Amino acid sequence: MSSTAGQVIRCRAAVAWEAGKPLVIEEVEVAPPQTKEVRLKILFTSLCHTDVYFWEAKGQTPVFPRIFGHEAGGIVESVGEGVTDLKPGDHVLPVFTGECKECRHCQSEESNMCDLLRINTDRGVMLNDGKSRFSINGKPIFHFVGTSTFSEYTVVHVGCLAKINPAAPLDKVCILSCGISTGLGATLNVAKPKKGSTVAIFGLGAVGLAAAEGARMAGASRIIGVDLNSKRFNEAKKFGVTEFVNPKDHDKPVQEVIAEMTGGGVDRSVECTGSINAMISAFECVHDGWGVAVLVGVPNKDDAFKTHPMNLLNERTLKGTFFGNYKPRSDLPSVVEKYMNKELELEKFITHEVPFSEINKAFDYMLQGDSLRCIIRMDC
Amino acid sequence: MSSTAGQVIRCRAAVAWEAGKPLVIEEVEVAPPQTKEVRLKILFTSLCHTDVYFWEAKGQTPVFPRIFGHEAGGIVESVGEGVTDLKPGDHVLPVFTGECKECRHCQSEESNMCDLLRINTDRGVMLNDGKSRFSINGKPIFHFVGTSTFSEYTVVHVGCLAKINPAAPLDKVCILSCGISTGLGATLNVAKPKKGSTVAIFGLGAVGLAAAEGARMAGASRIIGVDLNSKRFNEAKKFGVTEFVNPKDHDKPVQEVIAEMTGGGVDRSVECTGSINAMISAFECVHDGWGVAVLVGVPNKDDAFKTHPMNLLNERTLKGTFFGNYKPRSDLPSVVEKYMNKELELEKFITHEVPFSEINKAFDYMLQGDSLRCIIRMDC
Ligand SMILES: NC(=O)c1ccc[n+]([C@@H]2O[C@H](COP(=O)([O-])OP(=O)(O)OC[C@H]3O[C@@H](n4cnc5c(N)ncnc54)[C@H](O)[C@@H]3O)[C@@H](O)[C@H]2O)c1
Ligand SMILES: NC(=O)c1ccc[n+]([C@@H]2O[C@H](COP(=O)([O-])OP(=O)(O)OC[C@H]3O[C@@H](n4cnc5c(N)ncnc54)[C@H](O)[C@@H]3O)[C@@H](O)[C@H]2O)c1
Ligand SMILES: [Zn+2]
Ligand SMILES: [Zn+2]
Ligand SMILES: [Zn+2]
Ligand SMILES: [Zn+2]
Repeated sequence: MSSTAGQVIRCRAAVAWEAGKPLVIEEVEVAPPQTKEVRLKILFTSLCHTDVYFWEAKGQTPVFPRIFGHEAGGIVESVGEGVTDLKPGDHVLPVFTGECKECRHCQSEESNMCDLLRINTDRGVMLNDGKSRFSINGKPIFHFVGTSTFSEYTVVHVGCLAKINPAAPLDKVCILSCGISTGLGATLNVAKPKKGSTVAIFGLGAVGLAAAEGARMAGASRIIGVDLNSKRFNEAKKFGVTEFVNPKDHDKPVQEVIAEMTGGGVDRSVECTGSINAMISAFECVHDGWGVAVLVGVPNKDDAFKTHPMNLLNERTLKGTFFGNYKPRSDLPSVVEKYMNKELELEKFITHEVPFSEINKAFDYMLQGDSLRCIIRMDC
Repeated sequence: MSSTAGQVIRCRAAVAWEAGKPLVIEEVEVAPPQTKEVRLKILFTSLCHTDVYFWEAKGQTPVFPRIFGHEAGGIVESVGEGVTDLKPGDHVLPVFTGECKECRHCQSEESNMCDLLRINTDRGVMLNDGKSRFSINGKPIFHFVGTSTFSEYTVVHVGCLAKINPAAPLDKVCILSCGISTGLGATLNVAKPKKGSTVAIFGLGAVGLAAAEGARMAGASRIIGVDLNSKRFNEAKKFGVTEFVNPKDHDKPVQEVIAEMTGGGVDRSVECTGSINAMISAFECVHDGWGVAVLVGVPNKDDAFKTHPMNLLNERTLKGTFFGNYKPRSDLPSVVEKYMNKELELEKFITHEVPFSEINKAFDYMLQGDSLRCIIRMDC
């Protein structure tokens, strides 16, 4: 056990005091982990759109003051009661959704939507006692999606921690905590393209590029990237995207353009935009008889997915996925191994790096659309 | 070769001279089969809704005079040039959709939507020369979906004929030509429920009951039948349906009723109604994480399938099927074997029998909603 076990730890955290205002590095108190909880030291974290959405809190419930952050790599400092799978010193990736290993979802081979630990963006407290483990002068600071990795130390439910190979460099594999695994898994676990098949990827942000990386790994012969922003294509070539379509360049619906390019449609499509129009196009651009479309993007509250049922009867399949269908604890360690044995490239996703003290720069890069992933080093 | 090979055959056929008017038994001339065609003697045929829809021709293109019929069992009389798979005396089931074995669909393991021989309800002629093989005093009588089994002899493309075990009783297995295989395959080939799972079947007509039979064969623990007509439930019990829901009996959407009955939703659902509302309910009643919904019913031209995309992102799957995903030539023989080894019961689908001379009675039984399947015996 470390000398800090059982003690309150005082450390630096980037606190969001108000929606949309720059984060402030503060000294916070981090309480010891309770039953089924783990306290970890974060070494590297990265910024994802979801942090930005909830920090902006435009459509979302505002929960402030809050510590954001959910893509990270860390080392276990101490564990609470009933934690048997992890011990101090273990290398872990915290994940915004969990795996209790006991509910119907965890026991199903097909689902990763754990009843107990499924993402809850409105909750700012721990499950065990409904309270926060963070405070400043006794005033609680709220958690975010059970991870709050923009802090040198954080407390996480054991079900939301993947124990990984300690040889894996945490400054690289930390990005597997969210978006990259989501896109990769959408292709590898859900769309499952066969070798030689054609794949369309809608949206060439980090998630879409990870989906393209999955298609490349699966041996797709053509990877058609679709984005409203033509600048994305240059970057996308590094991820195996072979052709590019900007819907704005055409008078007809993009699904018709793709059908013409491919003799009737692609074998698989993966939608990574969050736009309902792109979701419908992604479905309608797959080939009849065998085409499979996978939705990843998070839609608006009032969106409706709409298509003629004949498109389904003609033997197309429509699916959606959450975190690429990976079960965080059971499956993430093997994704890390794919990086370790060089099947999966992660470096090309990492476009920027900043010290923790300059975390607000990571927000600027993302808001300007300059970055795929910006690594935030906690040690400086 | 039979003595009639190469000759025109004169025989009885039930001709539909006008939309909605009783069929008339006429003497017709049946020309010999051309390249890739087969002429067969029909021994038993049965009536399906699709015959009735196109005979009524309310929403469909009227093509008259026409010989309807597409569920049947027969024996090959003679074959045209280039037919190597079949010879006189072979027992066959004609099918409204075909399998050329050469196109991309036929070569895909997943599809049965042959480019060449896919159903075409507007075409009344043979592919080879664009002409009919039926005539009365030199005036052509049109074909229906390439089968026209309401005739003692008919000509069919070899790709639309399944060669089956000659020991199989044609008066039973003839009903595997269409609706029964469609429902059965929707469950066994597409929904694929695991042993012990819960299945909802929307629509308890012949197709839905065949889907229920598939669920029973797959070992489903609960089979929930949904129909607007409560009378259907009694019959449905014979097909393994264990519970019944009539949407009219509830104030809330039937998907919510089913979610409550099953702790969140069924594992699989199969829609066999043709109603767009039932299609949406069938999708929304499956469990998140792993639920799969399969659409079978043929919708109206202007219908739109509409759902919130979150229902998909929560890891539900939506698929459609055509002829239960069976490839007619490759797969139907083994469905016949399932009947032969008593895995599959067919007798319970056969509620009526009439001689060919009284074929209009079969239409009456169906229009009154009295029959599941009525067998029409051609020999009397
Ligand atoms: N399901 C999950 O578990 C999960 C996890 C992480 C992210 N996401 C979602 O995945 C989506 C993508 O995330 P990201 O970080 O890559 O976002 P991003 O903003 O970096 O990239 C989205 C891309 O889509 C493009 N786009 C928008 N509308 C389009 C349209 N109609 N047609 C074509 N392209 C269009 C944009 O130009 C942009 O390049 C988001 O909706 C995000 O919320 C889902
Ligand atoms: N995809 C294919 O290859 C294929 C092949 C054959 C038939 N079909 C289609 O399958 C469907 C069923 O065929 P069938 O012969 O069994 O028809 P049927 O008319 O005998 O049975 C349909 C049943 O659905 C019920 N129903 C209608 N609307 C409903 C609703 N909103 N909710 C619940 N129940 C409802 C009716 O009461 C009826 O009992 C039809 O649409 C038919 O065109 C498809
Ligand atoms: Zn669980
Ligand atoms: Zn994220
Ligand atoms: Zn074919
Ligand atoms: Zn039919």
